[in-house]
Amino acid sequence: MPGYSEPVDGLVVDPERLRNWTDALVRHCGTPADIAADVAELLLASDLRGIASHGTARLPQYLKLIEAGIVDPKARPTKEGGKPALARFNANNGWGHHSGRVATDDAIERARQTGVAISVLRNANHYGIAGWYAMRVAHQGFIGLSLTNTSPIVAPTRSRISMLGTNPIAFAAPAGRFGMLVLDMATSTVPRGRIEVAARRGEPILAGWAIAPDGSPATTPQEALDGSLQPLGGREETGGYKGYGLALMVEALTGILADAAIGPGIIGLFSTEAPSNLGQFFMALDPGAVDPGAAFEGRLERLLEELSGAPLTPDAPGPVLYPGQPEAERAANQALEGITVDREHHDSLVQLGQRYGIAFPSGRSIGSGR
Amino acid sequence: MPGYSEPVDGLVVDPERLRNWTDALVRHCGTPADIAADVAELLLASDLRGIASHGTARLPQYLKLIEAGIVDPKARPTKEGGKPALARFNANNGWGHHSGRVATDDAIERARQTGVAISVLRNANHYGIAGWYAMRVAHQGFIGLSLTNTSPIVAPTRSRISMLGTNPIAFAAPAGRFGMLVLDMATSTVPRGRIEVAARRGEPILAGWAIAPDGSPATTPQEALDGSLQPLGGREETGGYKGYGLALMVEALTGILADAAIGPGIIGLFSTEAPSNLGQFFMALDPGAVDPGAAFEGRLERLLEELSGAPLTPDAPGPVLYPGQPEAERAANQALEGITVDREHHDSLVQLGQRYGIAFPSGRSIGSGR
Repeated sequence: MPGYSEPVDGLVVDPERLRNWTDALVRHCGTPADIAADVAELLLASDLRGIASHGTARLPQYLKLIEAGIVDPKARPTKEGGKPALARFNANNGWGHHSGRVATDDAIERARQTGVAISVLRNANHYGIAGWYAMRVAHQGFIGLSLTNTSPIVAPTRSRISMLGTNPIAFAAPAGRFGMLVLDMATSTVPRGRIEVAARRGEPILAGWAIAPDGSPATTPQEALDGSLQPLGGREETGGYKGYGLALMVEALTGILADAAIGPGIIGLFSTEAPSNLGQFFMALDPGAVDPGAAFEGRLERLLEELSGAPLTPDAPGPVLYPGQPEAERAANQALEGITVDREHHDSLVQLGQRYGIAFPSGRSIGSGR
Repeated sequence: MPGYSEPVDGLVVDPERLRNWTDALVRHCGTPADIAADVAELLLASDLRGIASHGTARLPQYLKLIEAGIVDPKARPTKEGGKPALARFNANNGWGHHSGRVATDDAIERARQTGVAISVLRNANHYGIAGWYAMRVAHQGFIGLSLTNTSPIVAPTRSRISMLGTNPIAFAAPAGRFGMLVLDMATSTVPRGRIEVAARRGEPILAGWAIAPDGSPATTPQEALDGSLQPLGGREETGGYKGYGLALMVEALTGILADAAIGPGIIGLFSTEAPSNLGQFFMALDPGAVDPGAAFEGRLERLLEELSGAPLTPDAPGPVLYPGQPEAERAANQALEGITVDREHHDSLVQLGQRYGIAFPSGRSIGSGR
């Protein structure tokens, strides 16, 4: 459902070759093999689902942080204590994809005993798509929740300046023949990437997306990029204070609960001035603890069936979707047909490969073929 | 922050006299004393916070359900098993305020051992404001979350008809000198009550609030009342699919997880055709399990301080608020000055008192004084 932009000019790359290249590159920068495998898995999952902004396109920025000595590619998370169902980890400023995977797996294992279990992480780095961790939980037949705080680019209701991040909420649950329900949403109306796309394409931006630096509603993409995103719901009258409240809830359960950096105190995304020290939250809940067998899954399946068949509004561009449906369909398709990367993304990876002496795999050109 | 309507014509009633009257009335209908005390506490808390739609104004409807034999005023919740951190209760179709309080307290006690604990409830009834249960947890210094499914009056993105409820999310956390942060939000753009207020006052309704029965955007309050509310975010382009996703997340964690009625299968609010069989979810999380002392609270306090002092947009009607701030201020004020109830609400309670022979306490008239 989100407005990811479909590349119209770029290359189609084989997923396994892209994964192997990513893995080799990440290992080349001093990352142990098991950690590199987590990074490659996350970035590929993101590319496959069509969320290019959180996939291999970020590799140049990740590697720059390692080269600058800001992120420690060898660091492993350590458990800092807690109680049976709630544990805190220190990510020790390593790869966010690895510390997130470890914290998630620990929550899953504890949930088998306690019914539900949470891990919180501090000193963490950018961990890619929040949804991946929730999906990892759902693959076990459990309900997953993953939250992270992020750099402040959202203005709370009435504030002229950015004070909170897009603080995403990712929720996944197993859903029988529908695979899984995967809600992976920023708590802002749109992600910053959507404004960047509008700027590149010369498109207008809609009311409720952003404010200009003076606090008035942004009317052009440039004003929005110079200003702040608005929380989900947009203006106060249309419920924007709810999106602000959700962002604050995420902040309370991540940076504040885990004792990491908080809201206005978080440095810019991929800034090399200091470690990010993000806070993250991972929950695994076993529905089988209260209900025998696959009953939960069957009930969710029936609801998704009803939703998919609902009568439509006159302007509906297609059927009612369930969260994660377009991304799952795209992932299934791209796993077979190859991953489409746009030309700018492709060129930056080719350069990265040249720089490290690990040639980027060749792809099939589409679009203008420049 | 939400647009509760301030009564301009009504009566000011002493809170303790209103509580005692409510308690006596509820006991008179066959409710054991301890259960009646929970009901009175919840309804008064709602009135004090200015959320009249969920307070004593609902008494005529609650008592009608008991008279019709639909709700069992004597029923007590029973635990149906689970694991240390996740338990399911059967509310046995009793007062929702009591079963919710019991399930919340059970989660709090288990969280002392496990760090976090959840109770889910089935066969439950309307439980008043979702925020009360989260606040009860926060009064223990813990983080609270309370969710319920509700009758379908919201149309998922692209659907012409209502398929889900306003499925609220209530979150509370202790916040030092700020008392507590209390987010208590429907996952629709506005509650149905806001449309009813617009209809009474002849006000317009805003884009993104509701759709008409034919699925087009509702332009008058009547079209909206005949149609469906829209999820938080409004239309698809402004992120409405996120509000829909949140409503579905709440449904998964309540009706679907607890094996209660689900989405389109839930009967109308206060309908006497059958028991409601709602599903509810209560979480208690002890921040002290991962961090000694009042550290969590101090960090949240500092963030709320920063938010409260943020520079404002030109059109801001006041300072940046934190969730629950206006309601807490109103509750403090009304606890001292008395609760203002509008005339229609007052007259219905006077009638109820006459019917059951328990005279409604006299109040001080304000406004036109009719």
